[in-house]
Amino acid sequence: MNKTKEKVNAAIVIIGNEILSGRTQDINVVTISKWLNELGVKLEEVRVIPDIENSIIKTVNELKKKFNYVFTTGGIGPTHDDITSKSIAKAFNLSYGYNKEAYSILEKYYGKTKFNIGRKKMAMMPKKASLILNPSSGAPGFVINNVYCLPGVPSILKSMLGGLTNKIKGGKKILSKTISLHTVESEIAKSLGEIQHKSKKVDIGSYPFFRLGKIGVSIVIRSTDKKKIDDCYKEIVSFVKRKKINMIGGK
Amino acid sequence: MNKTKEKVNAAIVIIGNEILSGRTQDINVVTISKWLNELGVKLEEVRVIPDIENSIIKTVNELKKKFNYVFTTGGIGPTHDDITSKSIAKAFNLSYGYNKEAYSILEKYYGKTKFNIGRKKMAMMPKKASLILNPSSGAPGFVINNVYCLPGVPSILKSMLGGLTNKIKGGKKILSKTISLHTVESEIAKSLGEIQHKSKKVDIGSYPFFRLGKIGVSIVIRSTDKKKIDDCYKEIVSFVKRKKINMIGGK
Repeated sequence: MNKTKEKVNAAIVIIGNEILSGRTQDINVVTISKWLNELGVKLEEVRVIPDIENSIIKTVNELKKKFNYVFTTGGIGPTHDDITSKSIAKAFNLSYGYNKEAYSILEKYYGKTKFNIGRKKMAMMPKKASLILNPSSGAPGFVINNVYCLPGVPSILKSMLGGLTNKIKGGKKILSKTISLHTVESEIAKSLGEIQHKSKKVDIGSYPFFRLGKIGVSIVIRSTDKKKIDDCYKEIVSFVKRKKINMIGGK
Repeated sequence: MNKTKEKVNAAIVIIGNEILSGRTQDINVVTISKWLNELGVKLEEVRVIPDIENSIIKTVNELKKKFNYVFTTGGIGPTHDDITSKSIAKAFNLSYGYNKEAYSILEKYYGKTKFNIGRKKMAMMPKKASLILNPSSGAPGFVINNVYCLPGVPSILKSMLGGLTNKIKGGKKILSKTISLHTVESEIAKSLGEIQHKSKKVDIGSYPFFRLGKIGVSIVIRSTDKKKIDDCYKEIVSFVKRKKINMIGGK
């Protein structure tokens, strides 16, 4: 029998001073998280850290023990502030040098005359790294054990996830159902808390929103068990009707 | 003499399953980070963690020792998944109960008849908490030592930062200057690396971009010392001209 693990988890490490300084809005977490959901992997922690070798080594070493998968983003480009590959090599006590396959891919991509020292740097990786191919701009990412190193540019990162999909062994897929209401959280807090209390293996989240000048609350039910979600959904709809709260979408 | 500390740092803890699940795009990091820059506080780490008591306690206890300031966002609302206040109380070994001032603010805000159990929950805080007033929706945040607890809703969070400004003692303000070029990173990597190597107390970041179908690189120079930024800027402009690379903005 092919058993599916109940729970497979992951963490993301965003390496980049530009995110910490507020200059750049990260959007990679949402991209990776949604992709992981589809694969049955639950994202359980994100860290944003600076381009400092010790921070990278310490963070990666801590998280690779705690989670099934760790994804890093950023710091694998050609410039002096791209220090992820070297730092990951140190984290794993591996030597750092040219990866033949990456070197050959990049040499073909740029042509021999344009394959300068900056571009060659992108072929330097921890020894024994296996590549994550890059269909949009040549330079590959890489994998060492359970650590997957991806670039920081969102469009490039996105284009590389497809090729990774069959390398990730997920658990049961996390399903969700959302109910949006014309109400405020404090009106439903008590009933919702009671339902969460008796619903095991279901996560009920409550999120206020302000949309087109109207306020409301979205209730999100998440679980790997569709029946549990449906049961929970019915209970919520039942108290919502009893309280004469309007549902958005009208179901 | 009123000495300004050279370096004051901070971390943000985003508490929220909705960020980890990819359902919600965080924008609070950029807001807080830019506000901290203005105050001379450097954001050095961000963690996104789930609505789980142990995760909150462990993370906050670790970061409050490592950083001058810790800001948490999320989990201080009225519903069952809002567990930040209680968890912070446990992290500090403080009792958890009604804060008289918060209770009175909320009672006035909602009126006695509408001050239900969910709303009352928002007045529960660790003992000795001092309040962070909320000009947009009543419910206050709170401070315990160097830990500042803010809500997750971006517009409310933003409205509360103004009232905090004079409570934060920053260091020297971090200044920055950006040069945007029509080039690719690998063309400038070597020269930029050399400049970074000899420029102490200056951080040079290199960020590729794709804008209106054109590719380019933004170089960001950051330091607390304006003269060092200016010197670094001149050196970069000099090699950029030598290499006949076009600057965007034409300076």
